[in-house]
Amino acid sequence: MSLFTLTHTDGSARRGHLTTAHGVIQTPAFMPVGTQGAVKALTAQHLEDVGAEIILGNTYHLYLRPGDELIARRGGLHKFIGWSRPMLTDSGGYQVFSLSDRRKIEELGVHFRSHHDGSAHLLTPEKAVEIQANLGSDIAMVLDECPALPSTPAIIDTSLELTARWARRCRNRFLELKGEGKGHAQFGIVQGGTFPELRQKSAELTVSIGFDGYAIGGLSVGEPNETMYQVVEQTVPFLPVSQARYLMGVGTPIDLVEAVARGIDMFDCVMPTRNARNGQLFTSEGPLNIKNARFAEDDEPVDPACGCYTCRRFSRAYLRHLFMAGEMTGGTLNTLHNLSFYLDTMRRIREAIAFGRFEDFRQSFHRTFTRRALIS
Amino acid sequence: MSLFTLTHTDGSARRGHLTTAHGVIQTPAFMPVGTQGAVKALTAQHLEDVGAEIILGNTYHLYLRPGDELIARRGGLHKFIGWSRPMLTDSGGYQVFSLSDRRKIEELGVHFRSHHDGSAHLLTPEKAVEIQANLGSDIAMVLDECPALPSTPAIIDTSLELTARWARRCRNRFLELKGEGKGHAQFGIVQGGTFPELRQKSAELTVSIGFDGYAIGGLSVGEPNETMYQVVEQTVPFLPVSQARYLMGVGTPIDLVEAVARGIDMFDCVMPTRNARNGQLFTSEGPLNIKNARFAEDDEPVDPACGCYTCRRFSRAYLRHLFMAGEMTGGTLNTLHNLSFYLDTMRRIREAIAFGRFEDFRQSFHRTFTRRALIS
Repeated sequence: MSLFTLTHTDGSARRGHLTTAHGVIQTPAFMPVGTQGAVKALTAQHLEDVGAEIILGNTYHLYLRPGDELIARRGGLHKFIGWSRPMLTDSGGYQVFSLSDRRKIEELGVHFRSHHDGSAHLLTPEKAVEIQANLGSDIAMVLDECPALPSTPAIIDTSLELTARWARRCRNRFLELKGEGKGHAQFGIVQGGTFPELRQKSAELTVSIGFDGYAIGGLSVGEPNETMYQVVEQTVPFLPVSQARYLMGVGTPIDLVEAVARGIDMFDCVMPTRNARNGQLFTSEGPLNIKNARFAEDDEPVDPACGCYTCRRFSRAYLRHLFMAGEMTGGTLNTLHNLSFYLDTMRRIREAIAFGRFEDFRQSFHRTFTRRALIS
Repeated sequence: MSLFTLTHTDGSARRGHLTTAHGVIQTPAFMPVGTQGAVKALTAQHLEDVGAEIILGNTYHLYLRPGDELIARRGGLHKFIGWSRPMLTDSGGYQVFSLSDRRKIEELGVHFRSHHDGSAHLLTPEKAVEIQANLGSDIAMVLDECPALPSTPAIIDTSLELTARWARRCRNRFLELKGEGKGHAQFGIVQGGTFPELRQKSAELTVSIGFDGYAIGGLSVGEPNETMYQVVEQTVPFLPVSQARYLMGVGTPIDLVEAVARGIDMFDCVMPTRNARNGQLFTSEGPLNIKNARFAEDDEPVDPACGCYTCRRFSRAYLRHLFMAGEMTGGTLNTLHNLSFYLDTMRRIREAIAFGRFEDFRQSFHRTFTRRALIS
C-alpha cells in the first residue's frame, strides 16, 4: 500500500495526503523542526493550535541526549514528548557531516565525536535505521552523504554512489526491523549536487531500491535559489508520480511556492522558528524585523492579514518591547506567528491546487510577498 | 467605597475579594510577577489557563524600557501587553534601592543611574505615582524606603519616618491625579524592620494617611522565616480589618500558608517563576529538582496530584530532558506547573477558610509539603 495518495494536480503542482501510523497529513506539507524533542519556544499545545500536522525530530541530537534507547524505554518519541500526531526523523547524517573536523567518513559509516563531550561514535546506515526505529518515527530517512557545494562532478559522483550503497543497507535493515514489527515507513534521498545527469543517476539508483517516498537532499546549502529550483525541476521527472517528494531543509516562503510549482509535496526548515527568535517575522507583504525602531509605537499586529494568536492579541510595539527586553515570551509569540504564516501558506497552496488556481496564487503571492524586500 | 470585601474569617485567616477597575480578585490571592510586561516564559493565554486573576508589573523596568509614556500612548499597560484582568504595580523603589552604589537617597526622592545605559534619573514619590498612573495600574504602590536587614532601631526609625513623609506626598499626588480621572487605587506600605514598636509606629503613621489597602514591606530580605512570621503577626493588629493586607515579595508555599494564618490577603513573589526556570518544581510533597539524574527515566508527572497542562501531558523524564538540553519549552512547562501549584494552593486556602477548616488545612499542608525537604 502506498503511503501517498495524489488527489489533484495543477501543472506540476500536486495536492494529496500521506497516511502514516499516527494519522493523515495533507500535502503539500510543511514540517516544523523539533530538534531536541521540542519545537523551540513552543509547547505541543501551541503546535496543535497553529495546526501542525507533522513535526520533524533530529536523530543526531536525540541519539546523543537523552539517547534513543532511553526514549524507546519511555515508549518512543511520540509518548516521550507528548505529541500524538505524525513525526518524521532525519538520519542524523546532516548534523554529523556538519561537524567537519570531528568526523571521518568511510564505507562502513561515519565516525564522529559528540559536540557535547567529545565521546567517539560510529553512525552506520544500519545504526541510523535502528535509532529511528527506537524513536518510533512515522517516516524515517536513510543515511546519505551530503557533500558541500560547489563541488566537482567526480566528487559528487563518488559521493552519490556511496549514498546509494548506504541506501541499500538502510533499506535492508529497515525491512528486517519491520519484519519484527518495528518501523513504519522510510524515504530514500537523492543526491547529485547541481549536475542534472548526476541527479538523474542518483534518482534512478535510489528508486531502484524502492522506498516509501523520496527526498531531494543536498540543496539549500548556499547555492543560488535559481540553481535550487532548476535542480528540483530536473530531478522530479525521475521520481515516481505515485510517491511523496520531500525537499529537505527548504526554505523561504517563496522557495516553498516555487518548489510546489515543480512537484514537491513536503518541506522542513528551521527558518520560521529560528528567524522568529531573532526577530524576523514573515508577513503577507514580506518579512519585517521587529527590533527596528519604527515599530516602537506601532499598534498594528505583525500581519493584519493573519489570524494567529499573536496577531489577534498583540501589537508590533509589544513584540518589539519583548524582543528588546530579551523576554522568552517574545520568542514564543514570534515563533507562533511565523509557524502560523508558514502553515497558512501551505493551506492556501493546497486550496489553490485543489481549485486549479495554483498559477494565479503563485503570481499573486510573489507580488505581495516580494513587493518590499524587507520592511525595515 | 472599600476595595476589599471580607466574606469569611477563620482564626486570623481571612477570605474575601477585591473589586478593581479590571474585575474582581478572590483573596487570599497570589500575584505572578510580570517584570517587564510579561510573566517570564509565559503568554497571557497561559496565565488565563492557570487561572491567574491578577499579575504584578515592575515600575522600575517599565519606566526605563519601553517607558511609561510610550505605554500610556499605547492605551496603558493592560492594552499594551494584552492582559485585561487586574494588575498591581510596585513603585519602582525596591529595584532602585537594589542598585546600591548607583543610587542616592534624599528627602526629595532617589537619584539613580539606569542599569541599562547609566543614564541619570530621579524617582520622587510624586513621580512614582505618575508613572503608575501612566501604566494604568489597578492598584498602585507608594514609594517607600526599604532599608537592608539587619539594622539598628535608630536607622529603621529614621527610614520609616521618611517612608511616611513620602507616603503622604504619594497620597496627595494620587488624589490630585484621581481628580483628573487617572489612577484607581493605591496601597500604603508599612516598614519598621524587625522591631515591633517601629512596625506599630509605621503602621499608625501610614494608616493615618488613609489608603485603599496596606502592604507590609521590608520582609523576605534574608531574615529567618520565624522572624518574618513574627513581624507579620505583630503588625497585622495595627492594620484596618476592613482593608486588604499585602505581604510584599513573599514567598515559599509554607510562607503563604503561615502568612494567611496571620491575616494576610495578598502576595507576590518571583519564586515560582524563577525557580521553574532553574528546574526547581513545587509539588504537594515538597519541591523537587528536575535536573537530578533520578528523574531521567521517571514516567510520572511532576506532581501526580496536579491537574495542570504540564502534569496532564508530560513526564518528569521529558521535563528533565528539556532542562538538560536547554530548551525554552522546558522553562515554559516548568513555569506553568509552578504557577499552577501556587494558584491551586491559594484556591485550597480560600476553600479551607470558607469552610472554617483552615487550621486543618494548614497542618495537613505542612505534613505533606515538608515531609521530605527536597526530593533529590
